[in-house]
Amino acid sequence: VRLKEIGEFGFIRRISGPALIRRAGVVRGIGDDAAVFQADPAKLLLLTTDLLVEGVHFLRDLPPDALGYKSLAASLSDIGAMGGRPLDAYLSLAIPPDLPVEYLDEFYRGLYAAAAEHDVNVLGGDTTSSLRDFFVNVALTGEVAPDQVVYRHGAQPGDGIFVNGALGDSAGGLEILLNRWPVDTPAAAALWECHVRPHAGVREGQWLAQSGAVTAMIDTSDGLSSDLGHLCEESQVGARVEAAAVPLSDALKQLCAARQREALPLALHGGEDYRLLFTVRPDRTEELAEGYRQTFGQPLYRLGEIRAEPGMELVRDGKVEPLARGGYEHFRSE
Amino acid sequence: VRLKEIGEFGFIRRISGPALIRRAGVVRGIGDDAAVFQADPAKLLLLTTDLLVEGVHFLRDLPPDALGYKSLAASLSDIGAMGGRPLDAYLSLAIPPDLPVEYLDEFYRGLYAAAAEHDVNVLGGDTTSSLRDFFVNVALTGEVAPDQVVYRHGAQPGDGIFVNGALGDSAGGLEILLNRWPVDTPAAAALWECHVRPHAGVREGQWLAQSGAVTAMIDTSDGLSSDLGHLCEESQVGARVEAAAVPLSDALKQLCAARQREALPLALHGGEDYRLLFTVRPDRTEELAEGYRQTFGQPLYRLGEIRAEPGMELVRDGKVEPLARGGYEHFRSE
Repeated sequence: VRLKEIGEFGFIRRISGPALIRRAGVVRGIGDDAAVFQADPAKLLLLTTDLLVEGVHFLRDLPPDALGYKSLAASLSDIGAMGGRPLDAYLSLAIPPDLPVEYLDEFYRGLYAAAAEHDVNVLGGDTTSSLRDFFVNVALTGEVAPDQVVYRHGAQPGDGIFVNGALGDSAGGLEILLNRWPVDTPAAAALWECHVRPHAGVREGQWLAQSGAVTAMIDTSDGLSSDLGHLCEESQVGARVEAAAVPLSDALKQLCAARQREALPLALHGGEDYRLLFTVRPDRTEELAEGYRQTFGQPLYRLGEIRAEPGMELVRDGKVEPLARGGYEHFRSE
Repeated sequence: VRLKEIGEFGFIRRISGPALIRRAGVVRGIGDDAAVFQADPAKLLLLTTDLLVEGVHFLRDLPPDALGYKSLAASLSDIGAMGGRPLDAYLSLAIPPDLPVEYLDEFYRGLYAAAAEHDVNVLGGDTTSSLRDFFVNVALTGEVAPDQVVYRHGAQPGDGIFVNGALGDSAGGLEILLNRWPVDTPAAAALWECHVRPHAGVREGQWLAQSGAVTAMIDTSDGLSSDLGHLCEESQVGARVEAAAVPLSDALKQLCAARQREALPLALHGGEDYRLLFTVRPDRTEELAEGYRQTFGQPLYRLGEIRAEPGMELVRDGKVEPLARGGYEHFRSE
């Protein structure tokens, strides 16, 4: 059996059988943005890990400070998507012999910038050599009150599907990097910034979780179609998304117009936006959007609705089509 | 600046400056077997991470169940060396395309065996693809009562230096693997078993920590000379080790006699024995060794003594020579 035949998620199902042998204190194991365990009656502890592999998740072309910043932002976003407060990061690096110390200094500069923005310590980890490729693993702890944690499961038919910002901007920045397009317009600069310094919605996630109106939440790390698929699977529901409601930034529209690209596929399937994707009880949507705007000065975007029937649909120009998961899945080959 | 010019420990000093920005709750950050933070007044939480890189820490020749077992044992040993009880493991894997699923099944079989032995859950992690090499990162949490934690610092001049088992056996097993010697004698089988299924001294570490007689502790993952060096550095003391007191197993002596090798360098500098190396108040040594023997049916071995003067010395045949750190340090080239 080759991995590409069963895919990443098939592999995770295959190996996660005997994982839980001591249940006391464990609230949530494999299958959410972070693992959850009961530290004391008043507090849940969260732990998330993210592994970034050179040649798979990033290229050496990416500025090293951006890589450091993004490495921690990915984990911060996971904690935020549970409604949690991040605490301490643990960094494991496998460093190839040709990587200069100055590259690592820049990497740490970016990482510590993200840590300082979110009041997070870097407490330890492991540093080893690597034969060829650079590997970064971040483990991040967090905490949340038991009545404020939000999981991927919990979405109900009739709930609205919301996202807290434009989608596809990071994918636009990645196109700039991969095609070596110049960053010579305000639009290109904005997309580049979204790609190299993504905003982790930690405070936004805490606020949404505390509202009591959010029934399920995930962050968009793999891409809308993939992450909404995870949320639906864990909640055992389906979803219908309106193509016209998917928020596209002016910057992405301008870049796509100039380069003769379609923006919608980037927004549906592009990864690393690190937006919060969540579902809201139908009787609380207006109040929530108004409170969010007053608190953060930004709108929430309603993409569609949760349905009882499993599967995801996209409504485009009045026609309903299946919304296939187009995000990145490891091991799967087309 | 190249990494090999400053070495692993120089690099850690270089980058660990701004790591701690929020001190509340943090008891110990970078610099011990595990990070330590105060969960509530009655409990310290521990977290350790270990990264294993193909071609650096292991070869594809190593049986995959052994790799899985060892990956978790390394972290279990870190928690034991703090006197802690391990709780939950988080596993990040970067998997190259040529690795069959059966290899991973075996890897998990070994990992889950170590988890079951120590009542540890595997709660999550990250699974991604890798271009070429297999990478394994384990993060492991643990807990310990505040009055029972033992650090690397705390050793005092006059304290005895002890280890809880023979040294060099895992290095003997590695020689068998690297030289493709047959495992056709009881001695070879015993050394092989030490290499592929090392015993993590978790219960032993807890017992030693609870005795109140142990002033500092570390596990021998890099090798005696290297790990005793860490303990001395953190305790700001020196050490004198008696060569004749370094415990060598009969199996190692037999293998070395048969293959015309010296056993002592393997015991002084060989890694991955995962023994507990610790210092004991001089007035408590006999009582501790007797209690340990009654509890675990094994002796403790006194290697030498802590001294006020910095540096490590080896007494061999009545002569005093410097004990250089011969353990593995990443990035350093000879």
